Order: sequence, then C-alpha cells, then structure tokens
Amino acid sequence: MPQAIECVNALVDEFQQRRPIRAGSLIITLYGDAIVPRGGTVWLGSISKLVEPIGINERLVRTSVYRLTRETWLQGEKVGRRSYYSLSGPGRRRFEQAFKRVYHGTQPPWSGQWTLVLLSQLEVLRRQKVREELEWLGFGHFANGLLAHPTLSRRETLAVLQELDAAEEAIVMRTEALEPLASRPLRLQVRESWNLDELAGHYQRFLTLFRPLWKALNEENHLDEEACFIARTLLIHEYRRVQLRDPQLPDELLPTAWEGRNAHQLCRNIYRMIHHRAENWLDRHLETAEGPLPAPGPSFYRRFGGLEQ
Amino acid sequence: MPQAIECVNALVDEFQQRRPIRAGSLIITLYGDAIVPRGGTVWLGSISKLVEPIGINERLVRTSVYRLTRETWLQGEKVGRRSYYSLSGPGRRRFEQAFKRVYHGTQPPWSGQWTLVLLSQLEVLRRQKVREELEWLGFGHFANGLLAHPTLSRRETLAVLQELDAAEEAIVMRTEALEPLASRPLRLQVRESWNLDELAGHYQRFLTLFRPLWKALNEENHLDEEACFIARTLLIHEYRRVQLRDPQLPDELLPTAWEGRNAHQLCRNIYRMIHHRAENWLDRHLETAEGPLPAPGPSFYRRFGGLEQ
Repeated sequence: MPQAIECVNALVDEFQQRRPIRAGSLIITLYGDAIVPRGGTVWLGSISKLVEPIGINERLVRTSVYRLTRETWLQGEKVGRRSYYSLSGPGRRRFEQAFKRVYHGTQPPWSGQWTLVLLSQLEVLRRQKVREELEWLGFGHFANGLLAHPTLSRRETLAVLQELDAAEEAIVMRTEALEPLASRPLRLQVRESWNLDELAGHYQRFLTLFRPLWKALNEENHLDEEACFIARTLLIHEYRRVQLRDPQLPDELLPTAWEGRNAHQLCRNIYRMIHHRAENWLDRHLETAEGPLPAPGPSFYRRFGGLEQ
Repeated sequence: MPQAIECVNALVDEFQQRRPIRAGSLIITLYGDAIVPRGGTVWLGSISKLVEPIGINERLVRTSVYRLTRETWLQGEKVGRRSYYSLSGPGRRRFEQAFKRVYHGTQPPWSGQWTLVLLSQLEVLRRQKVREELEWLGFGHFANGLLAHPTLSRRETLAVLQELDAAEEAIVMRTEALEPLASRPLRLQVRESWNLDELAGHYQRFLTLFRPLWKALNEENHLDEEACFIARTLLIHEYRRVQLRDPQLPDELLPTAWEGRNAHQLCRNIYRMIHHRAENWLDRHLETAEGPLPAPGPSFYRRFGGLEQ
C-alpha cells in the first residue's frame, strides 16, 4: 500500500498532467479555502510560494492573478514594490455562494414543488438561448420546450426571465407538492434531465483519485504540514470542480446510492484529518503588508459539520 | 330574403348531400333531444315516420337502430309484431353527459389550475397511444410529451392512466393557480394546443348554416309544426356535431370574440322560437305500446337557460 506522501505526489502529478493547467481556478480554490477565512488579502509572493510545489510557477501566478482581476474576482493594491490582492465585492459574493456548497453538503428538506417553464411560445433561436441560460441556473429539461427546477421559486424564475426579456412569452407554472414526492418515473426523469449518470461518473473519478490517500492516512497519519496543505488544496479543488457541475438537487430526487454523497463524505473525512497541519503551514506562509494573516475565524471551524480547533 | 320554410328545406338538402348520411348519429340526436325528455322509449315505426322527411328511409332507420343496439346505446323489446327501443343504462349515462353540454353553455368559473401529464418515461409507441387517449378526454398538447388539462383533477387523471396501464410511468402534476389566470403566451399556447382556429372554423360553418333561418323566423314566424320539428332536430344535430370537437375550455382561456359563444347563442335563440311547435308534432307522432308518450319533464324546460312552457 502506498504511503500518504506518495499519494500526495501522485495527486500533484495528476494535476500537472492535465492540459491546460488551470492555474486561475486553483488560485480561486486557494482564496476560497485558505485566504478568505483569514481576511481575504494576501501578498502576491505568498501565493507563488504556496502553489509552486503544485507546479504553478511565479509567471503563471502573475498572469492568472492579472486575469482574475480583469474578471473582477480580485482587486489589487500596491504597497511599495509589493502587490496585495483581495477579493473584490462581487467576487466575495460569488465565492461565498460557491464555497458554501463545498463545505455544507446537506440540503434543506424539499417542498416537493416544481417550477416549470414552458418555452413553446418563444421563437426557436430565442428559445435555445433562454433554455441555455435557465440550464445554467440548474433547470433541467423535462420535455422539448419544458424546463423544470425543484427549488427556484416562480417569482425568482420570473425575475430571471425578465432579465432575459422573455417574461412576456414564457409560461411559468408552479406545481403543488406531489404525493409521493418522487415517484419512480419522476426519479427516472430527473436522472435523464440532469444527466445524473454522467455526474455520477465525475464523482466516481473523484472518489478513485482520493480514496488511496484516505486509506494511507488511516494507516499512518504523519504527513508533514506542507504536504497537508497541498493535499487539502487539491482535495477542495477537485471536489469543487465536480460540484460546479452538480445541480444540487434535493436529496429526495437523488438515487439511494448516490456517488455525490460518498464524495462529500470522503472529502469531509480527509479534510478533518489534515486541515490543522495545513493551517499551520498557512500561518507561516501567508502575509500582507502588515505581516502574517490573522487566524481563521469561527466560520472556518464550522466547515464539514465542525472541525477540531 | 328566403322564407323560413325555404331555409328549412335548404337545411334538409344540405343534410342529404352529405356522404355518408350518418343516420345513426341523427337518431342519437332525436333520442337526446326529443325522446329522452319523454321517458326514452319509442316504437321503431314512430322514428321512421319522424325522420323520413329528412331523407332517412325505413330500411336505413332499421339498420341504424340495429347498430346502435349492438353498440349498447339502445336496447330493444318486442311487443307483438312491434319493436320498441329505449336507451340502455350505459347509453343513458353517455347521453346525459353529451347533451348536458348542448343545452347548458356556460361553464363554472375556472380555478386557474392545470393538470399536467409528462409522458417522456413511456416507450414511444405506448406514449403515442396514451397521448391519443388523453386527447380524447380533452387534454391539449403543450409540448412534446407534455399534455395539459384545465379542469380534470389529478386524481381523475391518475384513474384514467391506471386504466391505460400507464400510471407507473406517467408523471402527473397539478399546478397552483396562475396570476393572471390566462397570460398572453398562455392564451396563444391554448389556441395552438387545442387547435382553436380550426374549431372556430367549424362553429363559423354552423353559424353560416343557421343564420338565414334565424333571420327568416324573425321576419315571419309561422313555420308549421313538422317544419319546426325538422329544423329543431337538424339544429341540435349540427350543433352537437361541432360541440363534440369542442374541448369545452374554461371561458377564461378562450378568445374574447369566440365563435363558440356565438354559435351557442344562435342555437338557443332558434330553439326557443320553435321548440314548442316541435313538441306538438312529437305529441302526435311518438308512441309506445301504451300509446302516446308523456309530455316532456321539467328538466326539458330548463334547457338553454329556460324555455316557455
């Protein structure tokens, strides 16, 4: 059985072999997982030092941070010769939304009601466009021209359609709660409409990637602080990448044996085991113009149902 | 301007020119309009005498009544050499259902709720079959695989699907009332889904056929009893034929200027003007083994919002 450090090296190899290396995306992971809980601002040089062992060199960090700034995720400030980067206002909102899902797996109980949007009265090209926008919001395709969402309200949907200038043509309906909430044909429909088989494949790939590390850590848990930081960053990065594709359907609509649940569990278990040593590493490697960053706030320790402090 | 009797003759010509002459259907009209209110049983010979001037001879009456008996609309009884025919039990139920619509045009106010049936989980050939059956029940086609009904309840729909052995595969949803009840795209959708333009054409044809009679009767109302009987029978026959195609959508979903409303109004107005003399004709021409039939019951006089006695 491979040792934990070998598993971490294998994960780094895996990350580096992927083309293109999405350095910007990894830096977003770093901000969301490590920097935001500590205030959100950091010297560009600390970022470079942290991600170098993952195979992202300083030049790549610079161009990525530059791009993230242009895309209004980050905003920079120069103090003397050093540049410090924080999340921008809109960036912070998007981060919070996206990362909440990563650390808090369970969903509130589902009402059983659907919001349906019928697009038959839209001219074909506009229908295609509106359909794509609604799919971005997690709508699934129940039938040709019929989109469905289990949690977005009718009012929220109408607001979106208004923005798309389609509120005058789309027909938006809200169903009463079904009894049972999820019949067999409805589950099959959901599986098809949200392509759950493909999503399960992605979660399966995540599980295959990280299960060896979990086994090794269980065997012998003395990975050093840097390796813990690298493992934690790649763990959240890979999990987040799969979760981005996940429409976050209510639990009631998912298969009984659902890879997404297993993936969340594995992610939580590894995180709980290594987060502390990774924080020690961050204590010593993150800094702003005022010196080291503050310790993570209380909301950090609420991640994954509660972390040991 | 043609006289009323010329209009009646033109209507008879019109009826006779149609091929095939649907004598059975006309006999059903006669039962529903004239015989049921008087007890529902009549000597076969009276039927022949009544419909002969419309161009249906005795032989055609016999074969039609024979077919209606085989199809369980009618049941026969022989007393001596004469045959007497009544509505059968199931026939009576179907009659009542069908004729209630003819004489009572207005619909109860609509709740604004839709029953939706999603057939995507049915195998293609079965989907086609179930779709056709639901369309018979007045379901409209909102999108490929999505049927909608404005008044049938979810429970009634599930019962139908159970009979079709499709309840385990179809997804039946009930929407909350929309606000407004009928938006512009919903009205357009309804017009498309129930092919209201074609239906309007059939009502238009009915209006064109009977408006001259109405004008003539308004001018000079002394049509004889037999002509009144013929006019009334063809009036209800033609109206019923169009109404059979009418899904009877809630008023809220129909166009503001709707030919169906005009047709009902014309039908009512002519009926009110001639029903009495037609009844006199029936008094003298309908008989059973016990002699002439009883006078029509009170429900007859509630037709079309109330008839003069």
